[in-house]
Amino acid sequence: MGTRAYLGYRGDDAKTPWGEFFNPEMAPLPAHVVDALHHGPQADQVLLGFDSAAELLEAGYHQTETGYGHLPNGAFQVSVRTDMPGVTPRMWDWWFGWHGTDTRRYKLWHPRAHASARWADGGGDGHYVGRTSLIEEYLGSSYAKAAIRFVEPDKIGVPAQRLGDSVAVCARLGSSEVPVDIGWFVHHIRRTPQGAEMRSRFWMGGPYVGVRHGNLFANSMVRPVAARQLPDPRDLLVHCAQEMNHLAGFLPALHARFG
Amino acid sequence: MGTRAYLGYRGDDAKTPWGEFFNPEMAPLPAHVVDALHHGPQADQVLLGFDSAAELLEAGYHQTETGYGHLPNGAFQVSVRTDMPGVTPRMWDWWFGWHGTDTRRYKLWHPRAHASARWADGGGDGHYVGRTSLIEEYLGSSYAKAAIRFVEPDKIGVPAQRLGDSVAVCARLGSSEVPVDIGWFVHHIRRTPQGAEMRSRFWMGGPYVGVRHGNLFANSMVRPVAARQLPDPRDLLVHCAQEMNHLAGFLPALHARFG
Repeated sequence: MGTRAYLGYRGDDAKTPWGEFFNPEMAPLPAHVVDALHHGPQADQVLLGFDSAAELLEAGYHQTETGYGHLPNGAFQVSVRTDMPGVTPRMWDWWFGWHGTDTRRYKLWHPRAHASARWADGGGDGHYVGRTSLIEEYLGSSYAKAAIRFVEPDKIGVPAQRLGDSVAVCARLGSSEVPVDIGWFVHHIRRTPQGAEMRSRFWMGGPYVGVRHGNLFANSMVRPVAARQLPDPRDLLVHCAQEMNHLAGFLPALHARFG
Repeated sequence: MGTRAYLGYRGDDAKTPWGEFFNPEMAPLPAHVVDALHHGPQADQVLLGFDSAAELLEAGYHQTETGYGHLPNGAFQVSVRTDMPGVTPRMWDWWFGWHGTDTRRYKLWHPRAHASARWADGGGDGHYVGRTSLIEEYLGSSYAKAAIRFVEPDKIGVPAQRLGDSVAVCARLGSSEVPVDIGWFVHHIRRTPQGAEMRSRFWMGGPYVGVRHGNLFANSMVRPVAARQLPDPRDLLVHCAQEMNHLAGFLPALHARFG
């Protein structure tokens, strides 16, 4: 199992300029997320394919904005939409370059599940694309030591030149303990009349598992093992919905102070 | 995995007299269905036994009108009640004889899960009892190619002469790819002060698995294999609740036009 970092604030953890934003109470799940949990796994044909990620840039909504299901290729897909009144897409761009430098910032985001964060390069605030965030967090009851390598949107087929004033946070998600990646995700944030909305999409397992700097043979060896390490899609859906909804509640104030 | 028919309407699919009734947006699950999902599997003694199907014709309600559970014989049972204001039992009798002739009709019923339908006899509209509907649909994320052989109510122990103005749609449910049946179902529709209610009952797996035109030995061989093909009872419950609730919303108008 290995050692685990602690959840929440202890001792002097709150004695930072941003400490007052730590709120251990999280809002209930939005009703549309509860609906998605009730509906259970969805048909692959109403889920966004990894090769179709660019469709996030089109106006309107997908047939499954919040939900999950299994794909014929053995992977699973999770989608979450989060309403964010008063938020702008740029605030999220700032957040992703700011939170990873200090565990006490990372904990603001999901006070019940986030345990530790640091940059693999040991560096500080600024940009995030091209850097790897080493985090420890719970997904459901499972403790994960993860490496999140942020990539250019083009890397997952989302053309950066078409983003306009929207933001696409894209990453390769893997382990920080073994050189294995298990999935991809994108959080696309676009303006709405009331502020912004985030449309998160995860593709996990199946062909999205790969050995870092490995080859096809290594990938085929590691996939069955990696499959056992994957989170439950329902846990991932709940976690994402909770953290995005929670942070959106104070992101405008946080950004006004530190952005 | 095999080929899959497509979900939803494409191209000229809506250019039929009934095309305007295709609505990709489905209502949220009724609250009593959500309650049943929260309750999880129920005691077999509060589930309707296959040999007691005739109890559907009695006044009042069963102890489990919506819910699911595992039976001591290795099968599972799923029950769903659907309120249908403005609907009559005869409309459902018409629907079952009408929808199976054209995939674009079948898709009206569950726009997120129904992919294909045709009659095994290649015939057109009319009756359904004694005919086999070959369908392709999702149950959760699982794609099923099914053969639904509609039978007389007496075949599952529901005496037709006691139906009165209620309707009992009864069928043997199996695969369209291999000669294996996996369960039975009945949708009993009866009048209420506001219209009608459908009480669906499924018995799946265990002794309800059988090789078509097979024998006891063949059945005992195929059961362990068939058990792995069975849907998750929760997915079946959600699917049934969704499709019946969805269609009931426009069945009176559809029937008025085409019935």
